[in-house]
Amino acid sequence: LERDKYEGNDVAGVVTGLAWTQVGGDILYIESILSEGKGNLSITGNLGKVMKESATIALEYIKAHAEDFNLNPDIFSKYNVHIHVPEGATPKDGPSAGITMLTSLVSLFTQKKVKKNLAMTGEITLRGKVLPVGGIKEKILAAKRAHIKEIVLCEDNRRDIEEIKEDYLKGLTFHYVTDMKEVIAIAVTNQKVKNPKAL
Amino acid sequence: LERDKYEGNDVAGVVTGLAWTQVGGDILYIESILSEGKGNLSITGNLGKVMKESATIALEYIKAHAEDFNLNPDIFSKYNVHIHVPEGATPKDGPSAGITMLTSLVSLFTQKKVKKNLAMTGEITLRGKVLPVGGIKEKILAAKRAHIKEIVLCEDNRRDIEEIKEDYLKGLTFHYVTDMKEVIAIAVTNQKVKNPKAL
Amino acid sequence: LERDKYEGNDVAGVVTGLAWTQVGGDILYIESILSEGKGNLSITGNLGKVMKESATIALEYIKAHAEDFNLNPDIFSKYNVHIHVPEGATPKDGPSAGITMLTSLVSLFTQKKVKKNLAMTGEITLRGKVLPVGGIKEKILAAKRAHIKEIVLCEDNRRDIEEIKEDYLKGLTFHYVTDMKEVIAIAVTNQKVKNPKAL
Amino acid sequence: LERDKYEGNDVAGVVTGLAWTQVGGDILYIESILSEGKGNLSITGNLGKVMKESATIALEYIKAHAEDFNLNPDIFSKYNVHIHVPEGATPKDGPSAGITMLTSLVSLFTQKKVKKNLAMTGEITLRGKVLPVGGIKEKILAAKRAHIKEIVLCEDNRRDIEEIKEDYLKGLTFHYVTDMKEVIAIAVTNQKVKNPKAL
Amino acid sequence: LERDKYEGNDVAGVVTGLAWTQVGGDILYIESILSEGKGNLSITGNLGKVMKESATIALEYIKAHAEDFNLNPDIFSKYNVHIHVPEGATPKDGPSAGITMLTSLVSLFTQKKVKKNLAMTGEITLRGKVLPVGGIKEKILAAKRAHIKEIVLCEDNRRDIEEIKEDYLKGLTFHYVTDMKEVIAIAVTNQKVKNPKAL
Amino acid sequence: LERDKYEGNDVAGVVTGLAWTQVGGDILYIESILSEGKGNLSITGNLGKVMKESATIALEYIKAHAEDFNLNPDIFSKYNVHIHVPEGATPKDGPSAGITMLTSLVSLFTQKKVKKNLAMTGEITLRGKVLPVGGIKEKILAAKRAHIKEIVLCEDNRRDIEEIKEDYLKGLTFHYVTDMKEVIAIAVTNQKVKNPKAL
Ligand SMILES: [Ca+2]
Ligand SMILES: [Ca+2]
Ligand SMILES: [Ca+2]
Ligand SMILES: [Ca+2]
Ligand SMILES: [Ca+2]
Ligand SMILES: [Ca+2]
Ligand SMILES: [Ca+2]
Ligand SMILES: [Ca+2]
Ligand SMILES: [Ca+2]
Ligand SMILES: [Ca+2]
Ligand SMILES: [Ca+2]
Ligand SMILES: [Ca+2]
Repeated sequence: LERDKYEGNDVAGVVTGLAWTQVGGDILYIESILSEGKGNLSITGNLGKVMKESATIALEYIKAHAEDFNLNPDIFSKYNVHIHVPEGATPKDGPSAGITMLTSLVSLFTQKKVKKNLAMTGEITLRGKVLPVGGIKEKILAAKRAHIKEIVLCEDNRRDIEEIKEDYLKGLTFHYVTDMKEVIAIAVTNQKVKNPKAL
Repeated sequence: LERDKYEGNDVAGVVTGLAWTQVGGDILYIESILSEGKGNLSITGNLGKVMKESATIALEYIKAHAEDFNLNPDIFSKYNVHIHVPEGATPKDGPSAGITMLTSLVSLFTQKKVKKNLAMTGEITLRGKVLPVGGIKEKILAAKRAHIKEIVLCEDNRRDIEEIKEDYLKGLTFHYVTDMKEVIAIAVTNQKVKNPKAL
Repeated sequence: LERDKYEGNDVAGVVTGLAWTQVGGDILYIESILSEGKGNLSITGNLGKVMKESATIALEYIKAHAEDFNLNPDIFSKYNVHIHVPEGATPKDGPSAGITMLTSLVSLFTQKKVKKNLAMTGEITLRGKVLPVGGIKEKILAAKRAHIKEIVLCEDNRRDIEEIKEDYLKGLTFHYVTDMKEVIAIAVTNQKVKNPKAL
Repeated sequence: LERDKYEGNDVAGVVTGLAWTQVGGDILYIESILSEGKGNLSITGNLGKVMKESATIALEYIKAHAEDFNLNPDIFSKYNVHIHVPEGATPKDGPSAGITMLTSLVSLFTQKKVKKNLAMTGEITLRGKVLPVGGIKEKILAAKRAHIKEIVLCEDNRRDIEEIKEDYLKGLTFHYVTDMKEVIAIAVTNQKVKNPKAL
Repeated sequence: LERDKYEGNDVAGVVTGLAWTQVGGDILYIESILSEGKGNLSITGNLGKVMKESATIALEYIKAHAEDFNLNPDIFSKYNVHIHVPEGATPKDGPSAGITMLTSLVSLFTQKKVKKNLAMTGEITLRGKVLPVGGIKEKILAAKRAHIKEIVLCEDNRRDIEEIKEDYLKGLTFHYVTDMKEVIAIAVTNQKVKNPKAL
Repeated sequence: LERDKYEGNDVAGVVTGLAWTQVGGDILYIESILSEGKGNLSITGNLGKVMKESATIALEYIKAHAEDFNLNPDIFSKYNVHIHVPEGATPKDGPSAGITMLTSLVSLFTQKKVKKNLAMTGEITLRGKVLPVGGIKEKILAAKRAHIKEIVLCEDNRRDIEEIKEDYLKGLTFHYVTDMKEVIAIAVTNQKVKNPKAL
């Protein structure tokens, strides 16, 4: 449990996701980093094919909507992006980290802080939709154990929350979204991170 | 079912296909996006080899017939194309999304709206023919559940429709085609999408 | 059966082959297309390693004998070639489509029509020989069902034809060859296709 | 046992790690070397995917924090880095060599000596955190057998040490860390190695 | 059997080898071809890893000993080499086609005829040695069936020939070699092929 | 046995190693060759991953210590290196050919003769250490059968020799080493090979 305790938001690109594993729900961090390069994307963390695809989709979406995020399109070809999902001993797969990866990359490219005590889970699509995912009950329990206060979910997962006993939901605020821009509006603050990188 | 509800056609490149899975027929979206690049094609969505080949064939066909679609051939080397098929948790394969991918790419390169309430299924070939596919009955039922009004099929699939009880077909209009240009004539409107990209 | 009905020869690069599958003989089309590029060869159609090798051999042979086909050797580095074998749901392999692929590429690079109502099957080699293949009886039956009139085979497959009842062979003309140039002489006409591409 | 006896620290990039194998804990060396090149990273030693990812993460982290280590960022594109983990007959995997690889690379790029009689084990993350790892008891016993005096562990592994009988810990000093910069502060001395390479 | 009948030697690069398959000995042809390029080597014929390695070794040896074969070293970077072993339906592997591949490439680069009615089998090494191979008895019987008159073998295979009944060897001349240059001296004539390519 | 008989040392890069296979100890040759190129390393001989890694480590070590071997560092980017281990029918793996590969490459780059009647076995590391390997008894017997006179082993393998009956060791001289430079001092003579290549 210690290893899941909530980290501050001083570093760009660190976002809390919710995962569903063989042993129940769990907290999962997405980290991302920029280094000078030519626009390559590398992905680590013992991830399967579908989870790697989510990272590609997130980056492609941001590139195609650079102006919506006030990003200079030139930065995409001047930096390499590396996305990592810690705890390499655990194999991870599936599309549910999509919105977490999207949020990580927007924080990274804008060098803005991610909201504290917030976690999320949801699939992303190229056209900007958020899709529902499974394992909601287990993920919510894991979020509570980790002292998460707010959770971003797909609107279509609202029914899954409504099936959970109210007691379990105390202290949690839910944000139901259908569009990827809503996720960013909720999750990425307007405050720059400590020592922001000048891009 | 929620996740299959029909989306508007404001975004270029989003087209509704019909798929046949282990659990019956289903609606499936093809999405595509352009980003500045050198003409690379990337494909995501947990797709098998044959479905990826369909994307390649669709793009090659459009390149070889650029003038027929009023496209400037230079755009193919100035943009990367990314095609995605949502719901990454489901493995997908087979050639039947061919005409859906073709329609997605023509909408993308022309920035024109796809016709609303329309779905399609059919294999494509390099010479421009549409070939019949399987699972027609299950696909039609899925289309009805998703409130689709018009369906594009290969002429050789007409017999499969004739074997379905008339009741099931109420409210559906069928377009039987043999050539890929007929698909585009039916499916891609002359109206530009909202905020069309200037290519 | 509909899907196998014979197509016209207005398009360059479309050639009818004979295949032998688990469920008997079948008609198979080879299609090829040129797009501006740097001489890359791509191959689709759910093909195995050996069938892909046939495509490579066919292209290499044509490159090495460009003058024999009145081809300007520069075109090989100015265009990409894509070869496709339709019906992606069926895995295909083996060397027997070799002469069909060769014919497809010669028609493509010369933009000349392939002879109508003609089918073929035979392995090719780098030095220009045609080698015999298996499944001749099943392939001949499939050719008849598809209303083929002439068939190109390796000289060493003559004995396989002689073992077939004469009744089955009615209406079929056989061309037995040993050299790849004989195939081209029989199969590629001197007539340009409709709207030939200026190479 | 001979093969594990402690080596001097005259060579940059040689660091002692602690591994947990099927036959118990073991000492493991990380070695790294620079050669003129273009910034490629190669990794040998019969390593699995996750252990190779650790090497990538370590290098990316150092690149992104070059200034913290007083490194000229230009060196990353002028040299190739090769990381090796000896005893190629033994397959190795897992994230626990992360801090050992990080230390190896910092020693390599700064050409500074690693502290003698020191071993370490811990996962690294892109944002600079050290994560706990398993097999602590077995690793400690192996460290003692190899006459290690100081050990670097994640703060979250402190509890694992507290569960070990005090007798086994005699003569060992533990450094508990949460941040990757702490590891470097403990493990890399300010003394240049013998014949330092001029970078 | 027809398919194994001996071919003339008018084409450069065509050499007869002896193979040992699950169904006994067999004749096997090696073909090679040059096309304008940058020195790439491609290999087809349904070959396994070891047989492909033989092709690499043969080409490397010729490059390193260009002067011994009166070859201008510049040609290696101006042409691509393609080696093919016909009968793609049969998987082939093992090192025994090494001297056959070497002979094919020397004939190709010198555009000289290979000796008629000659077959060979033997492994090659980078330093120019010929090593013995297995299946000698079966290979000899296949050679006789194909009307081969002379056979090149490794000196260390002499004992295998001595164990074969004299009757089987009638009409065959054996050349036992230890060095790869001996193979070339025996197998490649001083006569140019028909229409030699000007390299 | 014939195939293992000792070869002269006129050719650079040919070194005798000792291998341990399923059927006992055996002699194994390492060969290497230079061709004009850009510094690529290729490796053949039906080798597994770990044995290929040894080749990489040997080359990296030599590059990083070019001055110690009086080598002009420019040669590494002007030549391609090919390492081959003959007898392609036998799969080979493991790290024990490391010192043999190192010796082969030093002989190759210096064009100096390797000492006659000498064999060796030992793992190498990036920092220049020689590590012990297994199968010593079987390897020694194979060396005797092949009339080897001197053997280079890791110091940590001395105990393995001491456990062998003295009778078996008659006529053999052992060199125990801990550092890779000792191997080169023993194995590579100061005499140039016949017709040395001017690098
Ligand atoms: Ca966890
Ligand atoms: Ca998630
Ligand atoms: Ca669905
Ligand atoms: Ca479809
Ligand atoms: Ca068919
Ligand atoms: Ca065919
Ligand atoms: Ca050990
Ligand atoms: Ca470690
Ligand atoms: Ca044969
Ligand atoms: Ca052979
Ligand atoms: Ca041997
Ligand atoms: Ca060895």
